Amino acid sequence: MFQPPRGMRDFGPGEMIRRLYITESVRDVFTRYGFDAVCTPGIESWELLSAKGGGGEAIKEEIYYFRDKSGREMGLRFDLTTSLARFVSANPQIPKPFKAYQIGRVWRYDRPQAGRYREFWQADADIIGSSSMACEAELLSLASECLEKLGFEDFVVRLNSRKILNAVLEFLGVGRAKAPAVFRALDKLSKTGEKAVLDELKKSGVKQKDAKDLLEIAGISGKPGRIAEEYMKSIGQFEEGKEGLEEVREIEERMKAYSMKGKVILDFSLVRGLDYYTGSVFEIALKGKESIGSVSGGGRYDSLIERLGGRYTPAVGISLGIERIAEVMKERGRPELPRTRCDVFVTSVSGEFWKEAVRVASELRRNGISAETDLMGRNIRKQLEHADRKGIPYAVIVGEKEAKSKRYVLKDMKSGVQARLSLSGIVKKVGKVSG
Amino acid sequence: MFQPPRGMRDFGPGEMIRRLYITESVRDVFTRYGFDAVCTPGIESWELLSAKGGGGEAIKEEIYYFRDKSGREMGLRFDLTTSLARFVSANPQIPKPFKAYQIGRVWRYDRPQAGRYREFWQADADIIGSSSMACEAELLSLASECLEKLGFEDFVVRLNSRKILNAVLEFLGVGRAKAPAVFRALDKLSKTGEKAVLDELKKSGVKQKDAKDLLEIAGISGKPGRIAEEYMKSIGQFEEGKEGLEEVREIEERMKAYSMKGKVILDFSLVRGLDYYTGSVFEIALKGKESIGSVSGGGRYDSLIERLGGRYTPAVGISLGIERIAEVMKERGRPELPRTRCDVFVTSVSGEFWKEAVRVASELRRNGISAETDLMGRNIRKQLEHADRKGIPYAVIVGEKEAKSKRYVLKDMKSGVQARLSLSGIVKKVGKVSG
Repeated sequence: MFQPPRGMRDFGPGEMIRRLYITESVRDVFTRYGFDAVCTPGIESWELLSAKGGGGEAIKEEIYYFRDKSGREMGLRFDLTTSLARFVSANPQIPKPFKAYQIGRVWRYDRPQAGRYREFWQADADIIGSSSMACEAELLSLASECLEKLGFEDFVVRLNSRKILNAVLEFLGVGRAKAPAVFRALDKLSKTGEKAVLDELKKSGVKQKDAKDLLEIAGISGKPGRIAEEYMKSIGQFEEGKEGLEEVREIEERMKAYSMKGKVILDFSLVRGLDYYTGSVFEIALKGKESIGSVSGGGRYDSLIERLGGRYTPAVGISLGIERIAEVMKERGRPELPRTRCDVFVTSVSGEFWKEAVRVASELRRNGISAETDLMGRNIRKQLEHADRKGIPYAVIVGEKEAKSKRYVLKDMKSGVQARLSLSGIVKKVGKVSG
Repeated sequence: MFQPPRGMRDFGPGEMIRRLYITESVRDVFTRYGFDAVCTPGIESWELLSAKGGGGEAIKEEIYYFRDKSGREMGLRFDLTTSLARFVSANPQIPKPFKAYQIGRVWRYDRPQAGRYREFWQADADIIGSSSMACEAELLSLASECLEKLGFEDFVVRLNSRKILNAVLEFLGVGRAKAPAVFRALDKLSKTGEKAVLDELKKSGVKQKDAKDLLEIAGISGKPGRIAEEYMKSIGQFEEGKEGLEEVREIEERMKAYSMKGKVILDFSLVRGLDYYTGSVFEIALKGKESIGSVSGGGRYDSLIERLGGRYTPAVGISLGIERIAEVMKERGRPELPRTRCDVFVTSVSGEFWKEAVRVASELRRNGISAETDLMGRNIRKQLEHADRKGIPYAVIVGEKEAKSKRYVLKDMKSGVQARLSLSGIVKKVGKVSG
């Protein structure tokens, strides 16, 4: 028996109802915010994926790599941002700001474990061409609205800035060259704990005292404006630190224009794993579900497009992780979703009435109602059993009397209540419920 | 500058509006027919993809092959059917008939040429567990309705059966073992012409006379019922031939229950390239656009699920090719699609009124209207220019007077007509147009 590859999954009808509910909700919110859809290939050149500023060292080991039949080095995309940046670098004519979204699968050769897969789906929204913190505020509001629409009301937005982190390194006298390694180590803090991070920092050549000071600073979190003011004199004495602190303060200020349910805190321990971030970084976690990690994250990558050969173009993006959102929704059993999107099973009392049943189904379909008919030549009892097993809420019964009178029996599968109705009566009754 | 891999493409906002229009229309029709969504990985084991009955020899050369980091042989899926059959074989508990659809990308390492890409999208609908020709009729009606919904009214459904083709080989005395090679040769008839097919048949060991007779029979086409009757005595003397002819006749008969715009003909030259077909095969081509090939195709694959290790489970499916449909729509310029899905750009007369503009945009979004606000700190003239350049149909102007009175100027960007309206007035006016 064949199985999906290790770390990858099939999604059957029940799971897909949930996943479509998520992606359709997200697409709807993205569209209402004025983001345009884009789509890039699942495969990219290895040169791009491993490019400095693209994946870089942090992700290189996790990329699915292969040579195509002509010997070209290729890989499967590990995120959507790198491809979008490539697209923008090659298409400088696109009006700015370019608000783009993409929903699609990505692949990482990671150790499969609970909640981590080798194929997973991301829903990204990016604002390209603006360095204003209004973009950060809009993206955080956008992601919050997606989560609210999906039934999550209790979440925390953690905010930080690579500029602040750079200034912290300067403040501690840790060389700028060590930044990527230090950030990668610090990024693991919530997963592996202080001890492991200290070990890794030591390996990267950070003095023990500096490493301890770094972890102490990483422990700071609170209201962005308040923290920014408090550390303006220390971290803010460095140019980048000042910029970073002012930016997080501005993000908090700008967010007041939106009515967001989640709380925003500045958290000096927040790094984000990928190398391409240059400014703000942020993550959203569900309260009581912090253990599964963030359900959304992103940041500013002002230098990526230029590094990939384009003009200097500031950019910032946010990503929603479909798998984690789906898992929490499943666990909670909320929102309650139907088992099928089919509304009506149009039964035929015998083969003689199959054509009439198809005609009834066609008419329902024309009115936006999802309808099925018998495809097995089953008797009516078995047709009803099948409808019941699939969770289809209504059955229409088509037999001799119905075919003649053009009035059909509509049966509510749950309550068992039946009524004899005209086609337009059925459309009215079922459409009201399903529409 | 980085480009997408050879034979693959990026889709920017304009193209994506067309592609989303297609996939959303198709998904809607699939859902109204009661098909459930499924989703399988983009990667499959090489063993599956190259399995007899899976891809087989016909497609093996075109599959993207690689080894993952643990040495496992993998490949990118070349179609959606093989993965669905794997899913069904491993999940025998799913109630039958199982009506499943999947919309997704597939990859083939083919020579890139006009209309042929190495990454392309398919929208498949399959009915699993029934051997009734009612399934074929439903799938052809389904595909026709998709095409009609997308604005195509003039198309031809070509129908044939592998059973008929097998019987033709028997009739000619060509050994059954040669069938796969003969079918692959015959499949190229419309692309390469008679001469090339005769050469290939010769190479496969078919006698010249038999090959010529085969091509003569392949020239036969017409109304399914009429042709079936005419050839019942010759091709129908063989058991498979009789079954095949009766089946195509039944498909024609069953289709009368549906009101389909396209014409159905039985065409003895129709083969379909893949090895897994066992019964009916069909293709839909747009009239006047036959040169681009079919926009939809499929057939019955009753033995595939069993060959992949499952129980014997009859199955039939149809696939719509998104690229070809998109190209013809683009060429025709019909249906006319908006350049953006954004309805309103909410301008702020100065930075002072940005928050008010965001509040107005939020209120519009809550009412299902797509709205953008300034993210660049631009003056109002430049904001309006940007809205115009993107093709956003309306602008709302927010300044001091508007913020105070809560009545805003709504500007129709095309006609230039302005009106001062309350928020609910704007919702009413814009919602009516965009909704």
